[in-house]
Amino acid sequence: MSTAERPLILVTNDDGYDAKGVLTLARTASKFGDVLMVAPSKPQSGMGHAITIHDPLKIRKVDVLEGVTSYSCSGTPVDCVKSAIHGLSDRRPDLLVSGINHGANFSINVLYSGTMSAAVEGALENIPSIGFSLLDYDQNADFGDSAIVAERIIAKALNEKFPEFTCLNVNIPRSNGEKLKGIRICRQGIGIWEDRLVKREDPMGHPYYWLAGDFKEMDKGQDTDIWALKNHYVSVVPIQFDMTAHQHIPTFNNWEL
Amino acid sequence: MSTAERPLILVTNDDGYDAKGVLTLARTASKFGDVLMVAPSKPQSGMGHAITIHDPLKIRKVDVLEGVTSYSCSGTPVDCVKSAIHGLSDRRPDLLVSGINHGANFSINVLYSGTMSAAVEGALENIPSIGFSLLDYDQNADFGDSAIVAERIIAKALNEKFPEFTCLNVNIPRSNGEKLKGIRICRQGIGIWEDRLVKREDPMGHPYYWLAGDFKEMDKGQDTDIWALKNHYVSVVPIQFDMTAHQHIPTFNNWEL
Repeated sequence: MSTAERPLILVTNDDGYDAKGVLTLARTASKFGDVLMVAPSKPQSGMGHAITIHDPLKIRKVDVLEGVTSYSCSGTPVDCVKSAIHGLSDRRPDLLVSGINHGANFSINVLYSGTMSAAVEGALENIPSIGFSLLDYDQNADFGDSAIVAERIIAKALNEKFPEFTCLNVNIPRSNGEKLKGIRICRQGIGIWEDRLVKREDPMGHPYYWLAGDFKEMDKGQDTDIWALKNHYVSVVPIQFDMTAHQHIPTFNNWEL
Repeated sequence: MSTAERPLILVTNDDGYDAKGVLTLARTASKFGDVLMVAPSKPQSGMGHAITIHDPLKIRKVDVLEGVTSYSCSGTPVDCVKSAIHGLSDRRPDLLVSGINHGANFSINVLYSGTMSAAVEGALENIPSIGFSLLDYDQNADFGDSAIVAERIIAKALNEKFPEFTCLNVNIPRSNGEKLKGIRICRQGIGIWEDRLVKREDPMGHPYYWLAGDFKEMDKGQDTDIWALKNHYVSVVPIQFDMTAHQHIPTFNNWEL
């Protein structure tokens, strides 16, 4: 296959262009096509769908993987996707992959996650997009299983018909020595962060605060990403971006506003 | 009604605690209950559902409106909501209102908007929540119509049964001298930002970039927020946070991953 015929795969993440997870993903993607990497210059976890409006972006070429054109971008993961598609790339990507995130992004975390927001931005552009996350926050986490899972899903994504305006939220259990049980297509499980505001004082006696929290499951379903991951399956949730609560339109019409 | 019986209304926004829009909203909310305002210390437009993970927050009492307990917070709009509910407030808010934003948040902007992400965070906490946005970016915009609309919707929200885990995305047309035609319950219209990456050079000859874009409608429906606003109606979209593309679960099951 000549270079021109190889699919273009855009790689990004939210942990930064030199994270182990994104390098693993870029290496895996290279097996299938030409890879363009545009990733944040510094960690951008929890940035959700944030974009940079009032500040300019610094974008520079970086040399992190042989054969992979790579840029670091001072903006958010969504800025990286927009910059890649609308400026840095000379052709439209055939696939966007984001991650592999150092840490979980199942359930409601799809809203907070920079990794997944990059994939959602790809879906908005109607580019088949996949976010990958490993349930291990360690910067030296073992991405062995994740690379195998990513390779399998990327192969399918390039060969099957990918539904329009959709992306996938893929979470991979942390290795516990046991073989992964398989891959399950799931719905987004219901859960919430139970937060607390922790007060501290600086050496000058001025207060400052940390937001800390614990994830609380609120879903007993066996068709959720929460259930799949607990049972050592890879979870794959198809994601769309219509936030309308269609079922409640009649309720609010009855309010007679 | 004694003070203890008055509902507690949490007010936030993404333009900052001293913006004309949030002061208008806090004043309107004061007619219905005790108001707690926790809003960003500086503009946080386009912050989406971002949260602050790796940095502490500075939170301080500010005196902006008589009778309203007010805090400025160095974090994002979602940080403001979390800080209010899980630390600054001694009781659970009965209602959350966000805005009134200086600028539009209809269609896909619900994802990028700090104003709406604050309302979505309220919905996650199962607090009836409403985001208000005026289609006028001017910091001295005329919030006269918006205050009337907010008063009407807040009154209904406090007196009717508000569906669980839901919020409202309210957009108000910019005044054009014409009377508003009314309030319509809508679905989120389909549209996208057509972006471009604009290159500049600093005085030292180093490149930097701006992301700029124009909103493009992709929806001809007359039941959308896009249609309502164009026709000088207030748009009200009920919003939920299940991002699952339920209709595509069978498709991906057929991939046999």
